[in-house]
Amino acid sequence: MSTTRRIAIVGGGVAGLGPAWQLARRGWDVHLFERDEIGCGASGRAAGMLAPNSEVTFEEEQLLRLGQASLKRYPRWVEELTDATGADLDYRRGGALIVAVDRDDAEELEQLYQYHQRLNLPVERLIGRQAHRMEPGLSPSVHYALFTPGDHQIDPAAMVEALGEAFVAAGGHLHQHQPVAKVLIGDKLEGLGFEDGSTEYFSHIVIAAGPWSSQLEGIPDGILPSIRPIRGQMLVVELGEPPLVEHVVRAPDAYLVPRRDGRLLIGSTMEERGFDPRPSAGGLLDILEGAREAVPGIYDAHILDYWTGFRPTTLANQPVIGPTSIDGLYLSVGHGRNGILLTPITAYGLAETIDTNELPSILRPFAPSG
Amino acid sequence: MSTTRRIAIVGGGVAGLGPAWQLARRGWDVHLFERDEIGCGASGRAAGMLAPNSEVTFEEEQLLRLGQASLKRYPRWVEELTDATGADLDYRRGGALIVAVDRDDAEELEQLYQYHQRLNLPVERLIGRQAHRMEPGLSPSVHYALFTPGDHQIDPAAMVEALGEAFVAAGGHLHQHQPVAKVLIGDKLEGLGFEDGSTEYFSHIVIAAGPWSSQLEGIPDGILPSIRPIRGQMLVVELGEPPLVEHVVRAPDAYLVPRRDGRLLIGSTMEERGFDPRPSAGGLLDILEGAREAVPGIYDAHILDYWTGFRPTTLANQPVIGPTSIDGLYLSVGHGRNGILLTPITAYGLAETIDTNELPSILRPFAPSG
Repeated sequence: MSTTRRIAIVGGGVAGLGPAWQLARRGWDVHLFERDEIGCGASGRAAGMLAPNSEVTFEEEQLLRLGQASLKRYPRWVEELTDATGADLDYRRGGALIVAVDRDDAEELEQLYQYHQRLNLPVERLIGRQAHRMEPGLSPSVHYALFTPGDHQIDPAAMVEALGEAFVAAGGHLHQHQPVAKVLIGDKLEGLGFEDGSTEYFSHIVIAAGPWSSQLEGIPDGILPSIRPIRGQMLVVELGEPPLVEHVVRAPDAYLVPRRDGRLLIGSTMEERGFDPRPSAGGLLDILEGAREAVPGIYDAHILDYWTGFRPTTLANQPVIGPTSIDGLYLSVGHGRNGILLTPITAYGLAETIDTNELPSILRPFAPSG
Repeated sequence: MSTTRRIAIVGGGVAGLGPAWQLARRGWDVHLFERDEIGCGASGRAAGMLAPNSEVTFEEEQLLRLGQASLKRYPRWVEELTDATGADLDYRRGGALIVAVDRDDAEELEQLYQYHQRLNLPVERLIGRQAHRMEPGLSPSVHYALFTPGDHQIDPAAMVEALGEAFVAAGGHLHQHQPVAKVLIGDKLEGLGFEDGSTEYFSHIVIAAGPWSSQLEGIPDGILPSIRPIRGQMLVVELGEPPLVEHVVRAPDAYLVPRRDGRLLIGSTMEERGFDPRPSAGGLLDILEGAREAVPGIYDAHILDYWTGFRPTTLANQPVIGPTSIDGLYLSVGHGRNGILLTPITAYGLAETIDTNELPSILRPFAPSG
């Protein structure tokens, strides 16, 4: 293989796996290095709501456009990944319900509705009766809700697994439990140094190690943005029969995501606690209270699992994707709470950038500044 | 060995293990049969509060006396068990705090205080400041508390393990994963039939299988009381440094039990759900809310574990201990939430009954009716 198309991806979350797979399909010699196991940071622990519309806030229109562009690519993405692996990704396009449980929430939802209207985003206003018809398990205190039919959902853990498989099937080299210590840069990019002391040559390198990226040595100052872990706790309960909910339900203090495999994911906290993986009593309490407020029936649901994840978050709250000022060194970091949504656009867009040397216009607002 | 002193104990909780150990020490040929592992029903999952005083309610004075008699035997019991095994049972005599978090609770506590006074039980009334001096982690809303210096605590899982070891060391035969199917009774007691189809002769048999006892075949009607499982959920968090609490704290909707090994047990629910072992969202929610109300600092505590247990509970809410109308057949069942407290009196008392054919007077109110 040509040594001028020998690329290393540092990090086995979706920000790395997606571009790695696409580059392998484009004939590159791709090596992905993950310090632990693929998906173990944020990707495999996400809820998988694909909701650029219901997550939109008033200052993030660029990010909204990126999310919508990525969502538009999702059907093709899922088809390609399913063709490559046969995996069931539990991809669904049933829309999401955003519910208000008191008058203050309703006021906020009304603002959100107006904003959606202004941006021409698909959204429907529901009074309580209509919301309860869609989701009979909603609390009687839900008098107002928005339905965002454009929102999709997917099983992120299944997607991570499928991506690893598809990457290897496309000829990629997957190195798990192989921690990278250092990016080797002399006059130009030289390769990677590993914690075991070995080094390898690469013509191109993508940094995709989320909040752990800053622990890599050898990257000159000003290249990497600051990326901190925003911790999220998730609780998994039995969905039950009939299911507690059929749609994604977003309540003021928790969201509920039903899965075809009979699980109901309940999330999530936003905590600044560094990399502490241990769930806390208060975290569980908050999401349980938030979920009960919207769907009282969760009270009787059996607990199946709980975990914490770390959202890789930049100060600007948006990802940084593209080439740096060092020839051959690329970033795919800081996807925050939107990593699963942004997986296709990141994968297709960054692979194209690296393969053709041209950054697609949709990614330009997110290009590295250094 | 004499075949007239060949005894089977059916059930490996403390109600069976305690008498089994004492009978082995008295020279009997003792075989204990446990369908799963010792302590897996209620015994190993209890919190281990030894609190006849703070658990006293207004209709249970006989049970209170039994509990006090058992508590009095605890120091000797722990000493013997420690001598036999060297185990650390985390036995402590620091007393317990019963706290009120609102005016209604305070009224109830005042009633309990009067009742304790009437029965001459050791109890101290504390105003908020005094309670906070003892436990700085208490909520500011705790304005009134009782301190019951006579309450002790122990680690039940450690005790179960030590009992198994002491039993074997005393010559007992411990058969785990050996489910008993049937008690064989002809003209007189003949022995046991096992689920694997085998049978064994025994001159004496003790039924100590808690709520599972009624699943045994062959016991004539009217011998066994009705025993149902009352499910309890427990959450274990990190005690922290400095510890969140130093004493057992009993709040209106939860109790907190600190352990020397750095764990803090938070319990517990009382649920009638049969033998379903799966913790529920509502159970965790209730005990977390109950604990936070009394000790707000648990909000930040890391979660270590959670589990469910099944308290073997009779309709009269008291244990049934002693000989039945069938010669050689004994019961040690229905200890409910008091099993750990009642372990010494059950062990010493039932072993003496079987060995000497005389039921000690303290046990007489709890003798089988059939």
